[in-house]
Amino acid sequence: MRYVDENKIVRMLAGRFGARNSSVIQGIGDDAAVVHPAGSREYWVITTDMLLEDVDFRKTWMTPAQLGHKSLAVNLSDLAAMGAEPRYFTVAIALPEDIEPKEWILRFYRGLSALARRHNAVLIGGDLSRSPLGVQISITALGETFDRRIIRRAGGRPGDLLYVTGTLGKAAAGLALLQQGSTKGRNSREQSALRSHRTPEPRCEVGAWLARHRFASCMVDLSDGLSMDLPRLCEASGTGAEISGPLLPLFPASRAWGCDPLRHAVHGGEDFELLFAVPVRRAALLEASYPARYPRITRIGRLCRGSGVNWTPHPGARMERLDPSGFDHFRRQVVTATFPALRHPG
Amino acid sequence: MRYVDENKIVRMLAGRFGARNSSVIQGIGDDAAVVHPAGSREYWVITTDMLLEDVDFRKTWMTPAQLGHKSLAVNLSDLAAMGAEPRYFTVAIALPEDIEPKEWILRFYRGLSALARRHNAVLIGGDLSRSPLGVQISITALGETFDRRIIRRAGGRPGDLLYVTGTLGKAAAGLALLQQGSTKGRNSREQSALRSHRTPEPRCEVGAWLARHRFASCMVDLSDGLSMDLPRLCEASGTGAEISGPLLPLFPASRAWGCDPLRHAVHGGEDFELLFAVPVRRAALLEASYPARYPRITRIGRLCRGSGVNWTPHPGARMERLDPSGFDHFRRQVVTATFPALRHPG
Repeated sequence: MRYVDENKIVRMLAGRFGARNSSVIQGIGDDAAVVHPAGSREYWVITTDMLLEDVDFRKTWMTPAQLGHKSLAVNLSDLAAMGAEPRYFTVAIALPEDIEPKEWILRFYRGLSALARRHNAVLIGGDLSRSPLGVQISITALGETFDRRIIRRAGGRPGDLLYVTGTLGKAAAGLALLQQGSTKGRNSREQSALRSHRTPEPRCEVGAWLARHRFASCMVDLSDGLSMDLPRLCEASGTGAEISGPLLPLFPASRAWGCDPLRHAVHGGEDFELLFAVPVRRAALLEASYPARYPRITRIGRLCRGSGVNWTPHPGARMERLDPSGFDHFRRQVVTATFPALRHPG
Repeated sequence: MRYVDENKIVRMLAGRFGARNSSVIQGIGDDAAVVHPAGSREYWVITTDMLLEDVDFRKTWMTPAQLGHKSLAVNLSDLAAMGAEPRYFTVAIALPEDIEPKEWILRFYRGLSALARRHNAVLIGGDLSRSPLGVQISITALGETFDRRIIRRAGGRPGDLLYVTGTLGKAAAGLALLQQGSTKGRNSREQSALRSHRTPEPRCEVGAWLARHRFASCMVDLSDGLSMDLPRLCEASGTGAEISGPLLPLFPASRAWGCDPLRHAVHGGEDFELLFAVPVRRAALLEASYPARYPRITRIGRLCRGSGVNWTPHPGARMERLDPSGFDHFRRQVVTATFPALRHPG
């Protein structure tokens, strides 16, 4: 039951201390908060994420520039999951004594700024501190909606079709390489997996496009893995879900370094792809009008009545329960412990 | 030269990576950022601060509720320093393994929520994580201005009179008690000093009032101590300053536990009082119309031509340079090292 803890605490906080204010459209409990200040035309979407050394990353596995990219990417991905376009962000950094701050910070900000520019996100402030142990980063990002259109986790209905962007399990395959001591990649596939883990691309354009054209009834970003994030979508929408293993967009190349692509696609975290539901009557138009320049989308199943997630792992297999065993940010101890079973996959 | 480092790095970041965007009214380099999104009537003010165990606080010195209060207070104080009224905030917390999360978080949020309610600040989201070492907190607060009136660090002119709210050096006197092992306070004065350190009151009402009535030409909050924060105000305004030791609103009671009230008033950090300048022609009206229910304000000196801060430590003393030796958040290692010289004050 590792999975329940973080969710439980978040529910407790939302119930006891959550917003009681008409300007708060979405408080605690989604990928990001949504507020509608008096006098503002649009909705504002706000998200915060912390990245801690040896919990969320290892310094030896990433350059400061890659860490800068990833720290911002995880926040922009939360905005994308609401259908919002990034606007502003703040950065708080705590650095331990053994890091020469000026050079490190310069490299960190170079990586972060390159990503920020591509998404028109503007650095507006931050905080700088000494850390007693390890590098610690906290970023808050603000985004804006188009014409007050947001996509929440709630809103999906039984029958809606489930889609994901991009490829699933690729970031986990990159993490597996790092855990095996392969930090450079011996060929383009390994390098591609490492890039997915180190410098994920937040799907901001896709999220905003889906909101603008009102295709998605609900959405979440895949930060903790399909088996953890899909139940959150279902719980918020008051539905169950059925997905098909054979439909999942796998990263099969990872078999070459001993990974199980299906397992990574289902339980691997940090892909930062979008998972969304589309009413059946809108699906054909979505597939016809979806821009070719965006990362591909794949239909993987549907929402259904009831609760919980069932899946067919293989063609012809019987439908079975999909138990969550992705990341729990609150239980996670060190990066290497994230996939203990994956070092010697079957 | 401890003082220069954080400022230097912030300047580097502002120059290289700072906002190039017409909607950013104030980017890196003030107490908070100010943005004016297209379609918004008001300015939005945004600030982020991290609090790290054994850097910014000691767990044994504060209850979770007090820490919750203080974590939010330091952020609201940054909003106050811009003349903004608090609206929303997010909270990211990382907790080490040895803390039972549910109970701790409940107590933390109780303290934080009590302060938030008094200032109409609404909790809208957050992040929860395991920490490899120590409690780590990062809060981002958003505020709104009245009729686009903000007060920056820049804007002061030679001749403007300098004022502070409340009492200076009281939080440092409380910290001294904790360093002496006195965590409860043996009388009301000690308890008052401990409260100033543990649960400072951000001066949001005063800041917003000053902005609304256009009294202050520039403002900063005293987080790192007068001798560090006043030079920042001067540098941003392109002025020098002269202050008078005998005019400072001291906390003389701290002599009873071996403190030097004047030294604490000048170099002690975390008072979270406001320091602001007022054009001479507006000063009489300010003093006449300042609401009696607000914490008192005291005139302590003036801005002048040139650069740097001079002061007269005692009545009749010659004007001398005031060297910064307050907190540098970036150099600070552990709480006990903050005032090494103050354990055995002269």
